[in-house]
Amino acid sequence: MSSAGTFSIRYEFSADTLSNAEQTANEIALEQTAELPPNAIPPGLQHFTGTLSDLKQVSDSRYACTIIYSSDVVGEDILQFLNVMFGNISIKPTIRITDFDPGSLASLFPGPMFGIDGIRSLTSVYERPLSCTALKPLGSSPDTLAGIAFEAALGGIDIIKDDHGLANQPMARFESRVKHSVSAIKKAEQKTGKKTLYFPNITAQFEDLIQRAELALEYGADGLLISPQLTGLSALAYLARSSLELPIMAHPAFSGPFTIHPLSGIAPDVYFGKLWRALGADSVIYPNAGGRFSYTLDQCHSINSACRGEFANCRSAFPVPGGGIDRHTVADWKGRYGNDTIFLIGGSLYLHPGGMKKAAAEFQQSLG
Amino acid sequence: MSSAGTFSIRYEFSADTLSNAEQTANEIALEQTAELPPNAIPPGLQHFTGTLSDLKQVSDSRYACTIIYSSDVVGEDILQFLNVMFGNISIKPTIRITDFDPGSLASLFPGPMFGIDGIRSLTSVYERPLSCTALKPLGSSPDTLAGIAFEAALGGIDIIKDDHGLANQPMARFESRVKHSVSAIKKAEQKTGKKTLYFPNITAQFEDLIQRAELALEYGADGLLISPQLTGLSALAYLARSSLELPIMAHPAFSGPFTIHPLSGIAPDVYFGKLWRALGADSVIYPNAGGRFSYTLDQCHSINSACRGEFANCRSAFPVPGGGIDRHTVADWKGRYGNDTIFLIGGSLYLHPGGMKKAAAEFQQSLG
Repeated sequence: MSSAGTFSIRYEFSADTLSNAEQTANEIALEQTAELPPNAIPPGLQHFTGTLSDLKQVSDSRYACTIIYSSDVVGEDILQFLNVMFGNISIKPTIRITDFDPGSLASLFPGPMFGIDGIRSLTSVYERPLSCTALKPLGSSPDTLAGIAFEAALGGIDIIKDDHGLANQPMARFESRVKHSVSAIKKAEQKTGKKTLYFPNITAQFEDLIQRAELALEYGADGLLISPQLTGLSALAYLARSSLELPIMAHPAFSGPFTIHPLSGIAPDVYFGKLWRALGADSVIYPNAGGRFSYTLDQCHSINSACRGEFANCRSAFPVPGGGIDRHTVADWKGRYGNDTIFLIGGSLYLHPGGMKKAAAEFQQSLG
Repeated sequence: MSSAGTFSIRYEFSADTLSNAEQTANEIALEQTAELPPNAIPPGLQHFTGTLSDLKQVSDSRYACTIIYSSDVVGEDILQFLNVMFGNISIKPTIRITDFDPGSLASLFPGPMFGIDGIRSLTSVYERPLSCTALKPLGSSPDTLAGIAFEAALGGIDIIKDDHGLANQPMARFESRVKHSVSAIKKAEQKTGKKTLYFPNITAQFEDLIQRAELALEYGADGLLISPQLTGLSALAYLARSSLELPIMAHPAFSGPFTIHPLSGIAPDVYFGKLWRALGADSVIYPNAGGRFSYTLDQCHSINSACRGEFANCRSAFPVPGGGIDRHTVADWKGRYGNDTIFLIGGSLYLHPGGMKKAAAEFQQSLG
C-alpha cells in the first residue's frame, strides 16, 4: 500500500441481489481508477482501485457502498477528485453519489472564507435571517438597475445580487452597471445608516473570469455571484482562496442535470450543501420547494442542514432558498428554515404595487 | 427592437395539450431571460424574452418549440449563451435541448482549428479510420507509461492519448510522463517511419490548465486531451482559439448527467456533435453502444453525423467512439461508422496475450 492517506465516496446504485451489487461496486471502483479489466492491471498497482466498504441494501432495488480510495489517485487537483468521484460513471444511468469524505485531501477544499458568521459580520445582522433580492431584468440599462438597487437598499434589504443572467451585454456593460449599482447603494446607505451588500455576477468565460472578479473588488462590490457549473467547479475553489477576499454566492444555473434525477447524479444536499460549500461557496442559492422548480421540502431541509452542519472542517455556508418564495409566504418559510438562512425574493418584490422600496421594507419586516 | 441579430434554441418538453405546451414554451423563454413574471417586465424590454416558433407535438406527451432570442441577451460571452440555452431550466425535470443555431453569434464558436482534415494531415492517413489507444493504468510510473507508448507506436497506432485520469499524481507527474512518452514515441517513429500523435491529458484545475497546455506544447505533444465538463465548457473554446495551435480531443468524463436522460438534458448528438465541436473539439470521444455505457446505436450514428455534417461554418470533427469496442469487433464497427472515425480501444489491447505492439499492429490491420 501507498503511504498516502485516503478519501471516500458513497455511491448508491441499482442491483437485484447483494452479489450483483458487489459486482457493480467493484466495476465502479475500476471504472473510476484503472479503467481496465482486473486481469490487465499490474499486481503492484491493484491497490489504486480502491477498497469497498459498508455495502448494503437501502431499498427494494437499490444498494449503497462506500469506496475508499488512496489519495494518490487524485494528487493535488480538485478536478481529478471530481473525476474519481463521478467522471466516467456519470455516464451510467443509475449510479448516484450520496456522500463523500475528503479525508486526507481536505486541503483541496478551501471551504467558505466567510461563511455564515463572516457574512453576518459584514451586515451586522445576527439575530434573524438575511434578505436578498436580484437586479433584473436583463435588457435594463445600468441606470435602471442602479435605480432598483437604490430603492431596495432604501427599503433596508441586506444583500442585493445581480440576476445571474447579467453578464456583459451591450445594454449594460459589467463595468458600468457595477459602478452605478455600487454608487446607488452607497447613496442609500448614507440615508438609512444601514449596510446593504452588493454581489455582482462575475460568471464569465474562462479568459474573462478573473478580471471580472478583480473589477468587482476595484469598483467596491461586497461579494461575488458565480454559477460554478458554468465556469467549471474549480473556478469556485480558486476564487475562494484568492486574495480578493470577497464572500461568494453560488448560483445553480446549468446544474440541474446533476441534481434533479432521483437515481443518478449527485444528491442535492451533497452537491449544493457539501460540495459547493467545500469548494468555497459562502452562500448557496438553491431552488426552493413549492416554486417553479422541483425539489421537495425534505430535500430543501437536507440542503440547509448540509450547508450548516459539520463538514470537513469547513465553515458553514448560508443556504439561500429562491425561486419559490414570495413576500407573502416568507414569514412561514422563516418558521420552517430558521434564522441561518438568506431568503432570496425576486419577482414578488418587483410586482409590489407600492414599488421596490416599500416591497423591500415589508420583506425586512417579515424577517423580524 | 434591437438591431442585433438572433440565435435560436430548440426545446422539447412534456405537455398534455397544445395550449399547455405554448404556456410551457413561454415560461421557458421568460425563465431564460427576464426571469420575472410578464407583468413585471417593462414594456421596452419585452422583446428580450424571445419569440416562439414552430411549436408542435412530437409524440404522445411531448412537444417541441424553437425560441428565437436577440443576440443582445448574450453579448459576447459563451457561458451566457449556455446560460440562456439551459441555465435555470436545466433544473426542470422534463425539458430537453434538441438543437441550436448560433445565428449571429457564430463568432463565439471557434469550431475545430484542425478538424477531420487537419488531423488527417498530421497523421498522413487519408483513406481509412484512425486508431487510438490510451496510456494507463493510473498509478504507473512515467517509464512504464512511456514503455506502453513505445510498444503501441511500434505497432503503428495513429494516436496515443493519456488516460483521462492521468493528471499530475505523485506516481507520474505531468512533466515527467509527457517528456518520457514524447521521447518514447519519437524513438518508435524512427524505427517505423510512421507518425504517431500523442495527446496528453491537460485537464487541470482552473489555475493550472493553461500552464499544463503550454507545457504539453513545449515538450513536443501533438495534441491535447481535455474533459470539458470538468474544466468548464468555455475552457475548450479558449484553447481552440489559442496560439498553441494543437488539435483537441474532448473526453466525456462528468458529462453523463447532461446526456443520458431521455426527457431532459441535451440530446447527445447536439451535446457532443454540435456543442463540443462548435466550442472547438477537433475530435470527440463518446461512449459507444454495446459497451459499458448506455447510448443506443442510433444515438451513436447521430453523434457521428453531427460531428461530420454541416454546422455553423465549423470544420467537421472526428467522432471517437470508445468504451464499447474491442480488437475483435473493430472491423465491424468500421463497416458501420465509416472511415471518418477515430476508433479508441483501451482494455482489449492491454489484454492481448502477445503484448501491446502486436495488439496495436492487429488493430491497424483491422482498419485496412
